[in-house]
Amino acid sequence: MTEPSGGRLGDMALGKDYAGQDCNLARALELVGERWTLLVIRDALYGVRRFGDFQAHLDIPRAVLTERLQHLVAAGVLEKRRYQDSPPRHEYVLTDIGEALWPVVFTLGEWAKQHLPRAQTHRIYRHTVCGTELDAMATCPTCGYAVPPRDVEMTPGRDTARADHVSQALNRPRRLLQPVTD
Amino acid sequence: MTEPSGGRLGDMALGKDYAGQDCNLARALELVGERWTLLVIRDALYGVRRFGDFQAHLDIPRAVLTERLQHLVAAGVLEKRRYQDSPPRHEYVLTDIGEALWPVVFTLGEWAKQHLPRAQTHRIYRHTVCGTELDAMATCPTCGYAVPPRDVEMTPGRDTARADHVSQALNRPRRLLQPVTD
Repeated sequence: MTEPSGGRLGDMALGKDYAGQDCNLARALELVGERWTLLVIRDALYGVRRFGDFQAHLDIPRAVLTERLQHLVAAGVLEKRRYQDSPPRHEYVLTDIGEALWPVVFTLGEWAKQHLPRAQTHRIYRHTVCGTELDAMATCPTCGYAVPPRDVEMTPGRDTARADHVSQALNRPRRLLQPVTD
Repeated sequence: MTEPSGGRLGDMALGKDYAGQDCNLARALELVGERWTLLVIRDALYGVRRFGDFQAHLDIPRAVLTERLQHLVAAGVLEKRRYQDSPPRHEYVLTDIGEALWPVVFTLGEWAKQHLPRAQTHRIYRHTVCGTELDAMATCPTCGYAVPPRDVEMTPGRDTARADHVSQALNRPRRLLQPVTD
């Protein structure tokens, strides 16, 4: 799975693996550290499942999205499921392994919200069981445990400037993992 | 801060920013999503502070490491401090903003340990106050709160194969953020 070296400074160390780094974090980054990959996983947590929906929301070239989805399917983070036979159409659904990335996506977003100047107070995440806003560790302060994504309701903090249909769907309160396109 | 596009598939979308992505996670990835950057932050959490120590442990070209450190200093994640005047020498120390990335680094490493086939049961992290092993959310099950890195003791699960002096220092139990080189 190594790629040819490009001319960017960031690629001087060749490819996308970290062969010399004897560390779980390095193994994780070989998979989710590629450009766009964590945003694909974020979208899957938001309920995006179909190629066209990922593309509309991420606004990236088809070839990049295709490669990222294939890589995540091969790693067992996404499952490719046929939802229509004629013509054949597939969707990409998070596996349990993929859903387990929720704390990573959440804590990184919260870190940006708290500490980066260009970040926005944007979406609000609440525990559906009790309505309490999650703390910075994706834990419910009322119930005292880490909340899995299917028990999280997301409310947009303000309207997005984006006009694509996925952005518009995400402008309304919704439960995580609930499919954006039915 | 945009870079010229290279030939890699991953770079087809040009540069390292996610200008169209109206999202805190995208802002975070513009900073910590660059190749090697989260491993630099991991090392800083382990107590690595000096250029030569980062280089020995990460084994990356000087130009890449220089660029990553400069970017993190400019963003307020690392502080550059002079520790010797003649000749002038500097070290790179995590700021509060940088230390706040600990849950991200930890949850991503734990995810890999639990879910990726090539990951190893490697380092063990314990709360120094009570000796309890942290759970997957970097929380102490005994004390019931998220443990900051300066209250975490790291124990190697097995010896690393790496021979550099930083790897050897990390083969002994140590508190996070405690400088590797004194």
